[in-house]
Amino acid sequence: MKIALAQINCHIGNFEHNTNKALEAIRSAKAQKADLLIFPELSVCGYPSRDFLEFREFIEHCEKAVATIAKASAGIACIIGAPSVNPRPEGKNLFNSAFFLADGEVKAKVHKTLLPTYDVFDEYRYFEPNTLFEVINYKGSRIALTICEDLWNIDEDPLYVTSPMEMLIGQKPDIMINIAASPFSYTHAKTRKQLLKENCEKYKLPLFYVNHVGAQTELIFDGGSLVLNMDGTLYDEMNYFKEDLRVYTIEGALISSEHVPSWRDECPVVESIYQALILGIRDYFHKSGFDKAILGMSGGIDSAVVLALAAEALGPEQVMAVMMPSKFSSDHSISDSEEMIKRIGCKKSLIPINDLADAFDKSLEPLFRDLPFDLTEENIQARIRGVLLMGLSNKFGYILLNTSNKSELAVGYGTLYGDMCGGISVLGDVYKTQVYELARYINRDKEIIPEAIITKAPSAELRHGQKDQDSLPEYDLLDTVLHQYIEQRKSSKEIIARGFDISLVRKILRMVNSSEYKRHQTPPILRVSPKAFGVGRRMPIVGKYLG
Amino acid sequence: MKIALAQINCHIGNFEHNTNKALEAIRSAKAQKADLLIFPELSVCGYPSRDFLEFREFIEHCEKAVATIAKASAGIACIIGAPSVNPRPEGKNLFNSAFFLADGEVKAKVHKTLLPTYDVFDEYRYFEPNTLFEVINYKGSRIALTICEDLWNIDEDPLYVTSPMEMLIGQKPDIMINIAASPFSYTHAKTRKQLLKENCEKYKLPLFYVNHVGAQTELIFDGGSLVLNMDGTLYDEMNYFKEDLRVYTIEGALISSEHVPSWRDECPVVESIYQALILGIRDYFHKSGFDKAILGMSGGIDSAVVLALAAEALGPEQVMAVMMPSKFSSDHSISDSEEMIKRIGCKKSLIPINDLADAFDKSLEPLFRDLPFDLTEENIQARIRGVLLMGLSNKFGYILLNTSNKSELAVGYGTLYGDMCGGISVLGDVYKTQVYELARYINRDKEIIPEAIITKAPSAELRHGQKDQDSLPEYDLLDTVLHQYIEQRKSSKEIIARGFDISLVRKILRMVNSSEYKRHQTPPILRVSPKAFGVGRRMPIVGKYLG
Repeated sequence: MKIALAQINCHIGNFEHNTNKALEAIRSAKAQKADLLIFPELSVCGYPSRDFLEFREFIEHCEKAVATIAKASAGIACIIGAPSVNPRPEGKNLFNSAFFLADGEVKAKVHKTLLPTYDVFDEYRYFEPNTLFEVINYKGSRIALTICEDLWNIDEDPLYVTSPMEMLIGQKPDIMINIAASPFSYTHAKTRKQLLKENCEKYKLPLFYVNHVGAQTELIFDGGSLVLNMDGTLYDEMNYFKEDLRVYTIEGALISSEHVPSWRDECPVVESIYQALILGIRDYFHKSGFDKAILGMSGGIDSAVVLALAAEALGPEQVMAVMMPSKFSSDHSISDSEEMIKRIGCKKSLIPINDLADAFDKSLEPLFRDLPFDLTEENIQARIRGVLLMGLSNKFGYILLNTSNKSELAVGYGTLYGDMCGGISVLGDVYKTQVYELARYINRDKEIIPEAIITKAPSAELRHGQKDQDSLPEYDLLDTVLHQYIEQRKSSKEIIARGFDISLVRKILRMVNSSEYKRHQTPPILRVSPKAFGVGRRMPIVGKYLG
Repeated sequence: MKIALAQINCHIGNFEHNTNKALEAIRSAKAQKADLLIFPELSVCGYPSRDFLEFREFIEHCEKAVATIAKASAGIACIIGAPSVNPRPEGKNLFNSAFFLADGEVKAKVHKTLLPTYDVFDEYRYFEPNTLFEVINYKGSRIALTICEDLWNIDEDPLYVTSPMEMLIGQKPDIMINIAASPFSYTHAKTRKQLLKENCEKYKLPLFYVNHVGAQTELIFDGGSLVLNMDGTLYDEMNYFKEDLRVYTIEGALISSEHVPSWRDECPVVESIYQALILGIRDYFHKSGFDKAILGMSGGIDSAVVLALAAEALGPEQVMAVMMPSKFSSDHSISDSEEMIKRIGCKKSLIPINDLADAFDKSLEPLFRDLPFDLTEENIQARIRGVLLMGLSNKFGYILLNTSNKSELAVGYGTLYGDMCGGISVLGDVYKTQVYELARYINRDKEIIPEAIITKAPSAELRHGQKDQDSLPEYDLLDTVLHQYIEQRKSSKEIIARGFDISLVRKILRMVNSSEYKRHQTPPILRVSPKAFGVGRRMPIVGKYLG
């Protein structure tokens, strides 16, 4: 049997786009004489469609799309993910299903059993878990068909009490197929491969695994669909961060393909983050129907890295870098920015903000009188820049790129409605120390980001001589503590036990918890870590617990 | 047996506060000779504690608090809600439990079976569902103890396949106790009463039902704990929007109490929204450790209503109303605002923004050149006001109250980082037509909001002669369509079929779906409807489906 895997880039709720992608893949797979073509989980509507799933009309669109794709399945069978209506009165209204299509019709439906409801996932919000387990017979093969999380329950400490493969294995399947929507994080591809390998080892079956590729706002799907031999060895690994379609022949347990199977070397974290962010920016813009980006260029490393990423994602001619110096800006802020802009070849503007800052001082003088310059006036400068950038965005149709990094967002070192403005946050899941690594990676072949930008001491330049480290611990130290608290969910006690200063740890955790109200109003953040701020980390805003 | 219900106002993660509340209630119930005292669901940590539940240290705090409260249970038994650790390796780590405490120790634990995971609820994110059902024997009574949602599965079209009371009824319980965290919406108290009544009718048992009171950021718990006779008739209804503790004697099915039982007349929607918003504002401030509010006063009805609510919630002396007229502001905007401020007796400031608008024009002139005045310049005015209000907030420690209403938020008629700024959105779940009803309710005894503010045509006053109805349908019509789409999740087809103009409906739905990116950056919104923007309505930002 010839099995094709279609790793496609869907667009949530864009049924025309998604259906066309499927039909195109069917044509290509047919031309390559495939017997069976497999698409990712919920690819008819895109993943995650969130509360659109609660609209009956949305589900009708899904049903129509499945019917259209089913019609095209004459001469080739397809497996495609779509929601399906639960016919029983009790339980949730929908299943998360894999449709088995052949001879122009729906031959079978398999529903997802394990519904991830943690981090960024909300599947039990919409779906009833499956309780019926049956292999699919097709062309003499007995297929154990499961959906994403269904294969993720083989730990010693499993998250679910049921295990779909345990229910299926008694029916003597000869291959496993898993359709997935497994978003990128810089640790995830490795975990995923390991876990799928363990399934093959445990059940002594080959596995065809198809994932999404492409970004849906904050979630970036990295592709990397896999074919594994029955002993768990890797047979082939599809593209990362790009669409792909490949055809394999399987006879018994023996897989072959016409192209040379390839495996990716362990990809360095920084490279995978770089590629994820490029895809994240590009898809955010194109799927929103925009192509032009604007950003504030401070002369610091965050905006420099965002500029380089945006220019790569959208083309330098689509990017406008705006310099907005104040009386507190160093000379090098402009000269370094100018140099960077020249190297990138993007558009630029210069709007000094001294007059605007003076105008606000004047307007507020009757109320502020002779109260000293403080955080208020610092924030006003950041907010003036926000107003200017949003003005340009409105006038010329740019989307504003937010340049805040994860370290800042974590401790609330940023101005709401100022530098926290933007349509999408590019670095909001990248710690400052990782921003430096990204800068080095961007400069790997030639110096795109001027060395001076990388080596200068970080500063918001909102008052004379200000440095980030006046108010924050050194970033190396800060990021280490943050990582333990945010990604690893360690308690203050545990972090302190690892040798960190007690008052420092308490201070950092207090800053994180007490700036939740700011993060609530942050733009969506491109997710690259296993625990990003945003939809995957849901903390109370008014809460007393400070770690 | 004497049963006491303690309807308390918890604070998420404030273990000291919550434990003290419990100990105080124990003292009071003991003084009234109660045998059993019942607290709401998860009242040890507050509801919803969200991802704090994923921190081991947080759970340890819960365990310590339960132990402290257990110690105080000598001479009185208590039922209190807290998370408990799942001892089995498979499944989620926690249960959502009711602890039965007596003689200074934990005598029994009952876990929640039905885990609401829809709208604002995320319980399956944290908790494993219960599968063991046992009544509790205490002083000759057989108690069917359940937790909130456990009693909500008696529809013809139930959301869950299991029904806890069906599992317990065979054990011949003689009373039902349900501990709850059931947040307010203007339809919810009625539904709740009806549904609890149906449980009594079905199982022929009396019911003691204890709910939270108090607001946790956007969620407002309205109290209204209930005691029902075994035939489903109401025996007593506790306070709404206020803490309460009452003691009942039950002998067999016969309930009595020392005070005269009272039922609330059907509360008008507008009155319940008013009370909910007052509690929402008050608890947001006090639980955040703030007491002073600021808001922009435009002369329009939204800011007038917010001012009246804030003055009632916090005291007029704690509220600062800021008038920020531009060259487009009508004379009456200031005079009406001044009159309202005088009647309220709050603080006021006046900051004209013409000079600031001119300064932005001048700074942007090299880029905008002779491009015509458009939405850009309108937004700049709104954003200047945002900068001024946030400046005052920063300088003097006010929390900025957002004054956007639900109709505006729905269609994206508001300026991000302008009038959409704020710590908490007071009217973000109140349609414009409901804002008028609130204004009339506020004026029920005397004219607090000047009549001119209520009767003038709504306008953002961001250009000459602008009226809301230049860009939006009449609010009556708009709100009717929005309600069908948002609260009732009707499709465009269904709404059109009810007689609304096809192009109008499509336009409105398109506006709603395409302004998701703005709502993503909105402050938390006090929830008063069954479907509020925010955590209970999760829509894709980059999606193509437009209804």
